[in-house]
Amino acid sequence: MALTAARIPPGTLELLPLEQIAFQRLLDTIRRNFERFGFLPIETPVMEFSDVLLTKQGGETERQVYFVQSTGALEKTGAGRPELALRFDLTVPLARYVAEHEHELNFPFRRYQIQRVYRGERAQRGRFREFYQCDIDVIGKDALSIRYDAEIPAVIYSVFRDLAIGPFTIWLNNRKLMRGFFESVGIADGEKQALALREVDKLDKRGADHVRAALMGDGFGLSAEAAARILDFVQIRSHDHADALAKLGALGAGNATLAEGVAELKQTLQEIRAFGVPEAHYAISLSIARGLDYYTGTVYETTLNEHPQIGSICSGGRYENLASNYTKSRLPGVGISIGATRLFWQLREAGLLDVASSTVQALVTQMEQAQLPVYLALASELRAAGIATEVVLDGSKLGKQFKYADRAGIRFVLVLGPDEIAKDSVTVKDMRKQEQFELPRAELARTLRLALEQTRAMPA
Amino acid sequence: MALTAARIPPGTLELLPLEQIAFQRLLDTIRRNFERFGFLPIETPVMEFSDVLLTKQGGETERQVYFVQSTGALEKTGAGRPELALRFDLTVPLARYVAEHEHELNFPFRRYQIQRVYRGERAQRGRFREFYQCDIDVIGKDALSIRYDAEIPAVIYSVFRDLAIGPFTIWLNNRKLMRGFFESVGIADGEKQALALREVDKLDKRGADHVRAALMGDGFGLSAEAAARILDFVQIRSHDHADALAKLGALGAGNATLAEGVAELKQTLQEIRAFGVPEAHYAISLSIARGLDYYTGTVYETTLNEHPQIGSICSGGRYENLASNYTKSRLPGVGISIGATRLFWQLREAGLLDVASSTVQALVTQMEQAQLPVYLALASELRAAGIATEVVLDGSKLGKQFKYADRAGIRFVLVLGPDEIAKDSVTVKDMRKQEQFELPRAELARTLRLALEQTRAMPA
Repeated sequence: MALTAARIPPGTLELLPLEQIAFQRLLDTIRRNFERFGFLPIETPVMEFSDVLLTKQGGETERQVYFVQSTGALEKTGAGRPELALRFDLTVPLARYVAEHEHELNFPFRRYQIQRVYRGERAQRGRFREFYQCDIDVIGKDALSIRYDAEIPAVIYSVFRDLAIGPFTIWLNNRKLMRGFFESVGIADGEKQALALREVDKLDKRGADHVRAALMGDGFGLSAEAAARILDFVQIRSHDHADALAKLGALGAGNATLAEGVAELKQTLQEIRAFGVPEAHYAISLSIARGLDYYTGTVYETTLNEHPQIGSICSGGRYENLASNYTKSRLPGVGISIGATRLFWQLREAGLLDVASSTVQALVTQMEQAQLPVYLALASELRAAGIATEVVLDGSKLGKQFKYADRAGIRFVLVLGPDEIAKDSVTVKDMRKQEQFELPRAELARTLRLALEQTRAMPA
Repeated sequence: MALTAARIPPGTLELLPLEQIAFQRLLDTIRRNFERFGFLPIETPVMEFSDVLLTKQGGETERQVYFVQSTGALEKTGAGRPELALRFDLTVPLARYVAEHEHELNFPFRRYQIQRVYRGERAQRGRFREFYQCDIDVIGKDALSIRYDAEIPAVIYSVFRDLAIGPFTIWLNNRKLMRGFFESVGIADGEKQALALREVDKLDKRGADHVRAALMGDGFGLSAEAAARILDFVQIRSHDHADALAKLGALGAGNATLAEGVAELKQTLQEIRAFGVPEAHYAISLSIARGLDYYTGTVYETTLNEHPQIGSICSGGRYENLASNYTKSRLPGVGISIGATRLFWQLREAGLLDVASSTVQALVTQMEQAQLPVYLALASELRAAGIATEVVLDGSKLGKQFKYADRAGIRFVLVLGPDEIAKDSVTVKDMRKQEQFELPRAELARTLRLALEQTRAMPA
């Protein structure tokens, strides 16, 4: 029979077991922190009705959507959009979920969701067509206190502290502040503001002269003074808490929208401190925009101080109304998203991940087939003590079994030879420390647990 | 703007948060046990190339497959099968994965995989088009000791013991034993054996007379004696370990295939006992067939003793060669699958699940907005102690906050009024026990942890 080449579609990330374990640890850490802050899990179907998913006709989103058809549907449809499509984010499914279950949910509704999403992006290194998003949102009914805007950075801080991938900064801005400022320099139109920000985004790559020229060109027609004010504005970043408040104070009263944005951002900064986030970990950056159409108040980005090239690893913000496409209820909210697949890929590229240690913690080797019941009983004891244990059931030379443990990233290799069985002891090789020692069997589980807990407590 | 009706496609199971928490606990328990036995996680993309997924042309499987197309591909294709399709199980992706990464994996390769799969089933109550499968497999290169066949029931036992959904039985059979037996009564052809078993499967519903008539009818043309022998054979079930061995002994020598099957099943039964599985939890049942084309040795089913109508909740078996469509290497293996979505749905229908307790363990109420920093500090202390804690940030009446905790399934409601703040104490209401007490703040975290751990240790 002719063989089919085993291969996966481009734009998907498939991992070997030890990498998958590292990725799973990343997801588990995120989930643990989401739960610690009282967020509730939901999962939604990977496919939604196309009319539910694509309430806005056309546009770039629809170009990237994957449609789904059963064989029967494929045969029937001559024309027209397929009935089902894969979700491209977790926000539209959340909106649909909250609208659908509105009367069964408790508000404020604090949900987390960790699932894969699908986008027909152009295939490119580091770009994925299938990737995990890890989202939290707090949704209010009719209203949601601005205090929740300060809780979100506390969750971000907790997640990235536990991930231990180096120092990071949570950057804050406020859309009202930006809108007020742009109005004050003569750009009142929202779309024009977006275009201006896109120009400003090129600052790092193209330099100030290029951006200034664009702002003074045909599209905007700003004066040199207005262009200079914009360039100054978007470069405002704070160093610490006091500096952030001082810089916001220095913006002046301006118009009412600007003033409101400044007041909101000041309050949020104060409350972030009350949440216990160390001030080295949050700052303002007035260049942060995040999807201008969607966010209406506080916006967040998070960057790794030592790896700025990675860009934002956790972003989000406050929005006025989550589900206006599906319900007349007003549902304001605030949330963030971590793109875990891309984050994992980037951390791996940067060598910031431990991808060498297995979930399997102990391997019981096989010396004599006849002693299998003894090996199995030992494994049961260890498993009952919470130690993930594998038993060699296929006989092979001991050296080969050690090699297997080494390649597989298993930390403890256990040998029960005739001597050990006679003495009721176990010989342990710690593959990580390259140490070998003999222990009374009764002490084994406790000793291994202690060693594993000590390693876990150490910084990654 | 006209609203779009918020709804999900039929055949998908979407849960409210408390149900989702119960489902997540089910998945976590399964995963914890898979890991405890040394299985390694993998995840594969939800979509595979259609030619990889559908190596066998046509057939029922292809009728149920969902194809995936980007907008661009939709516009281009006039005819022909779409390039991508959603996986319909985790076995084909495993075969593709092992073939693709053959030289990077350690054998025996012990993998677990917990992901959703997709089948365009006819919409029907309790039938799902999107559902979780939780699979383990041990794959050998060239060979795999039959001892692994005994390890699988040890994992099944461990999973369902921890799930605590009532007494259960792991049923075993062996395909060689069946094949040998059917040959001995004159049905040598594999396809005919499958048809005969399908008839026999109707025993419970249609009765012995109907089945006997079918076996003696045109399709098979068996003698009355042969039909009687088949009916006797498939009704053989054991009560305990000794009974199982006795019943296998009573089958007699028969032909070589039968003898081999009997020997394998005997060995596996003996070794299951060495793995520490209590004998009340495993038995033989010679009616179990499981996908005749695929399995070649041991086969497993698992049923809940008190809920036979649910059918098998965990099934699998031994196969000769996993990935012959993708590689010339011989890859024998043994594995099982738990259909977690269907299992969850059935347990919920049968009222066997706790869907009332939240992952959120404590709610810090708000008495006075000015004391928010105190509430937040308390929450941080609890979170640091591993207690999932939510803080009320939107002010409302205390009674409303208690009602929220009650509806949300949060166990401990904490009150910090002026009195408590003055005394550095906390008033705790245990919503589960309907008890209220006051504690020094320094003792709070420890007390709550203890109470939560005690509850966890109790049977569900």
